[in-house]
Amino acid sequence: MSQPVPMVEIWRGPFLESMHTGHAVICDAAGGIIEAWGNPDQVVLSRSSSKMIQALPLIDSGAADAMGLTPQHLALACASHGGAPMHTQRVQAWLETLDLTDDALRCGAHMPYDPVTHDQMLIAGEKPCQRHNNCSGKHAGFLTLSKHLGGDSGYIDTDHPVQKAVLEAFERLTSETSPGFGIDGCSAPNFASSLHGMARAMARFAASPEDSAEARLHQAMRLHPELVAGENRACTDLMRATDGKVAIKTGAEGFFNVIIPEQKIGIALKITDGTTRASECAIAAILVKLGVLAPDHPATMKYVNAPILNRRGVTTGHMRAAPALL
Amino acid sequence: MSQPVPMVEIWRGPFLESMHTGHAVICDAAGGIIEAWGNPDQVVLSRSSSKMIQALPLIDSGAADAMGLTPQHLALACASHGGAPMHTQRVQAWLETLDLTDDALRCGAHMPYDPVTHDQMLIAGEKPCQRHNNCSGKHAGFLTLSKHLGGDSGYIDTDHPVQKAVLEAFERLTSETSPGFGIDGCSAPNFASSLHGMARAMARFAASPEDSAEARLHQAMRLHPELVAGENRACTDLMRATDGKVAIKTGAEGFFNVIIPEQKIGIALKITDGTTRASECAIAAILVKLGVLAPDHPATMKYVNAPILNRRGVTTGHMRAAPALL
Repeated sequence: MSQPVPMVEIWRGPFLESMHTGHAVICDAAGGIIEAWGNPDQVVLSRSSSKMIQALPLIDSGAADAMGLTPQHLALACASHGGAPMHTQRVQAWLETLDLTDDALRCGAHMPYDPVTHDQMLIAGEKPCQRHNNCSGKHAGFLTLSKHLGGDSGYIDTDHPVQKAVLEAFERLTSETSPGFGIDGCSAPNFASSLHGMARAMARFAASPEDSAEARLHQAMRLHPELVAGENRACTDLMRATDGKVAIKTGAEGFFNVIIPEQKIGIALKITDGTTRASECAIAAILVKLGVLAPDHPATMKYVNAPILNRRGVTTGHMRAAPALL
Repeated sequence: MSQPVPMVEIWRGPFLESMHTGHAVICDAAGGIIEAWGNPDQVVLSRSSSKMIQALPLIDSGAADAMGLTPQHLALACASHGGAPMHTQRVQAWLETLDLTDDALRCGAHMPYDPVTHDQMLIAGEKPCQRHNNCSGKHAGFLTLSKHLGGDSGYIDTDHPVQKAVLEAFERLTSETSPGFGIDGCSAPNFASSLHGMARAMARFAASPEDSAEARLHQAMRLHPELVAGENRACTDLMRATDGKVAIKTGAEGFFNVIIPEQKIGIALKITDGTTRASECAIAAILVKLGVLAPDHPATMKYVNAPILNRRGVTTGHMRAAPALL
């Protein structure tokens, strides 16, 4: 079993101060490995990176079309959004079309990730609702599917028709029997797979025909990158920087999934220590390597070779991708 | 050269989701290694963990006594404080005794780490001053020493008498020639050493006679743990939890230094990936192992075996120290 490989270096002055290791797999449409770092068989929880898989039954069941969902709804179903008004207002309107309120969500509340909205709410003394939860779009999708299937309100239980459908999609796309699940931060089950299985699932998204559920989801993400994350967030920045050619989704604990339709390939990446700064740097480096992110694009500078500034704005070091990714 | 060893595990449901590796050394008063994990020869930047060394010339020069500094001043000189009023008011008063204002500091400004103070300032529309910088106590100490030595205002330059004195203390305590320096977040130089050298320096603090500069500094930290960090911060929590028997100081990028006077030992620890959650867990586990932190103390539960909660407050996993530290 291969050990994780060095992926991201933190330099301060002439010293390598910190270092992040990880595993990554690039898969082709047939599920074969094009390139891998570390251990492709590593069992992983892909967390929010696999929201595209969790959203598949919403379309495959006919629920999305029966409810008239648009690409904006589908992008939100795949999102870990910032809780900015553009996100929360759309989720609230979506719930209203289902004759539901914020109380129907089971994701729990937290203050928005978006710093502008966060500070505005703090200054105004506003408490967050469940729609501010970064996963509220996914949960609105679950509620839509639940209504279509005639399920009860407990849509996050593993024996609920919604989660049974999610597991079926998960195992079909990864071509694996999931070894189990963890409970995610938003209380929904998050199914485990191998890293290879997750990259295989992303490659299947990439190679699916134009009107398939898979294609509709990655098209929606690429069309509305601002709904998938938000301003100054890596997924949004990198999807914009690739001119909408690539669907990119991060997950907690240092995960990234990538769908590149024009190359019919998928990528799954896990930073061993679960750190976001490292997963963002490593996935952006792989996008440069694959030729879908320009080496001189500002997003490349921001994520692949970022200066580290001190409190007076002076550069004291750099975060950069390790040689193995270059 | 030994590889870093697994130190902290992140579990979600039945899965080991993430893992942190690190290096650590426990030294005795003679500078010998009692126990080590990973590579004792690892070159490290100890960052704010070595503020006690940076404060030594303040006492050894006679500046502290000439200016009538109290243990509270000395604790602040060793602090990465939260920028709460108890910290900033004392730094401001200290600067006034030097006939200086906030403008004399060279640390730069940032919003306080202390979340209560942070939110109060945000709501009130207040901008941070340099005294809110977590290193402002260290810089007030530098200014005190500079005045005593007749130095100019550029006290963070490596050729300034203040930093020359810091380097002398650093090399004397570590018994090493420093291989160089990086510039810290507060713009001061931060000298490199081996991890063993840093643990040796901490053991020398631990074994120094009662009235020495070394002893006065760790006594001040143990007497005023709330000034060294702040409420709900690991250094403060753990110093309180050890009943003031241990001086504990964290540094950026996953560093900890510990002085245990009653055992005459010192500890230095570096998490490879630079993550704070891991450095706090690992150092607390070592404190339990050494018998200075009770296994059933609330701080042990908080740092060594912390539940991971989802957004609805349900436990979904645990962060815990790896077997090598138990």
